[in-house]
Amino acid sequence: MSVIRNILNSRSSKGGNFFNVVTQILGFKPKNIAHYKRAFTHRSLNRKDEEGNAINFERMEFLGDAMLSAVVASHLFKAVPGGNEGYLTKMRSKVVSRKHLNELGKDLGLIDHIETNIAKDQFGVNIHGNLFEALVGAIYLDRGYKYCRRFIYDRVIDPYVDIEQLEGKVISYKSLLIEWCQKEKKEFDYEVYEDTGNDELKHFAVKLRIDKRVVAKARATSKKKAEEKASKRAYYALQNKIQ
Amino acid sequence: MSVIRNILNSRSSKGGNFFNVVTQILGFKPKNIAHYKRAFTHRSLNRKDEEGNAINFERMEFLGDAMLSAVVASHLFKAVPGGNEGYLTKMRSKVVSRKHLNELGKDLGLIDHIETNIAKDQFGVNIHGNLFEALVGAIYLDRGYKYCRRFIYDRVIDPYVDIEQLEGKVISYKSLLIEWCQKEKKEFDYEVYEDTGNDELKHFAVKLRIDKRVVAKARATSKKKAEEKASKRAYYALQNKIQ
Repeated sequence: MSVIRNILNSRSSKGGNFFNVVTQILGFKPKNIAHYKRAFTHRSLNRKDEEGNAINFERMEFLGDAMLSAVVASHLFKAVPGGNEGYLTKMRSKVVSRKHLNELGKDLGLIDHIETNIAKDQFGVNIHGNLFEALVGAIYLDRGYKYCRRFIYDRVIDPYVDIEQLEGKVISYKSLLIEWCQKEKKEFDYEVYEDTGNDELKHFAVKLRIDKRVVAKARATSKKKAEEKASKRAYYALQNKIQ
Repeated sequence: MSVIRNILNSRSSKGGNFFNVVTQILGFKPKNIAHYKRAFTHRSLNRKDEEGNAINFERMEFLGDAMLSAVVASHLFKAVPGGNEGYLTKMRSKVVSRKHLNELGKDLGLIDHIETNIAKDQFGVNIHGNLFEALVGAIYLDRGYKYCRRFIYDRVIDPYVDIEQLEGKVISYKSLLIEWCQKEKKEFDYEVYEDTGNDELKHFAVKLRIDKRVVAKARATSKKKAEEKASKRAYYALQNKIQ
């Protein structure tokens, strides 16, 4: 208990703000904020508890990784009743790939909340995925499997897991659109900005411009998903021209 | 639904018995027995559902493996607050090793309940661990994470996960006892038998004889644990002689 209190006290000045930040990232309220504090604590701070155990997010990555694997496994098992073990294993490793986790952590801007003694620009690209895994671990510790599962659905499975895209059967609408713009020598531009509004979850909005004219808008819980949605809308709006 | 009904009908003659068997293995009542039927269905039967998807336990191993990894990760995370990621990963791989899972499946006699077109003696040793993983997958599908976690604690973590033994710091009492018997040219014999009694969970009892005399008895939820318990008792009873 006193360890938790120490952490809380040491950051009490911005405690309220951090609570709100975490609530918005999670889409629900944390119970014990100390788990999230820890999930954003870099080992460069050299924090230790009373027994001398390091307090930072590294161990939490291990836990978060295990939970991600379990929840995604269960989703794929149910979503693809015809997939055998090898298929399921391959699909899972695409969903929880390092690259993908980095993307997720980056979208959520997790690095903005890290506590560290190292300059943020010194971190490699994997910091984003590591923070994302640690965050999942913190949710498990704080709220248990059910909330952890809910977060993974909101942040990973719903916005990103499209079986046909994972199988490479469907190329993305964004790719189709970019291809067309390049062929037709059109300028294009995706303007993405945070637009959470009154939503529980952080949201992103995107404006897709072709030759400086907005041709489609979309909103979603990830940048990628928002871009894909806007591209799909533009694709159908422009279909006569594209095909 | 009709798939489930088909499976149930096709085995209705021994349905009641199978339900009891599963209840005893789990330590709680299954809700939807079809998941367990499937967890014991070998692909040699070539069962398929209406969409042509194979019905057998292979896919369920994938799910069970993921749940085992998650629950054991969470246990180790909490049990060893000083262990870093590398340590936790190594410890987990010891707990969920193929050898260990085979032992667990064998202790529970899972192969006795398999439905197959292949003679049981044709299976390799891994069948035991595969059935164990599939069973864990079935529990997750039937009763969710909480019961799955409970089963893994009852069957894997409580009887087997001793951090000091995993780290190789403590040699087992069974080893100490066997060593002593061999040195002293004593005959020894562990007689293990099922002794579930009125317990919810399947239990094993063991009688440890040295030179044909019973020197210790013990009872536990796994053969290994019962043997270790009896050895520990014998070890302390004989301590003056041994040291």
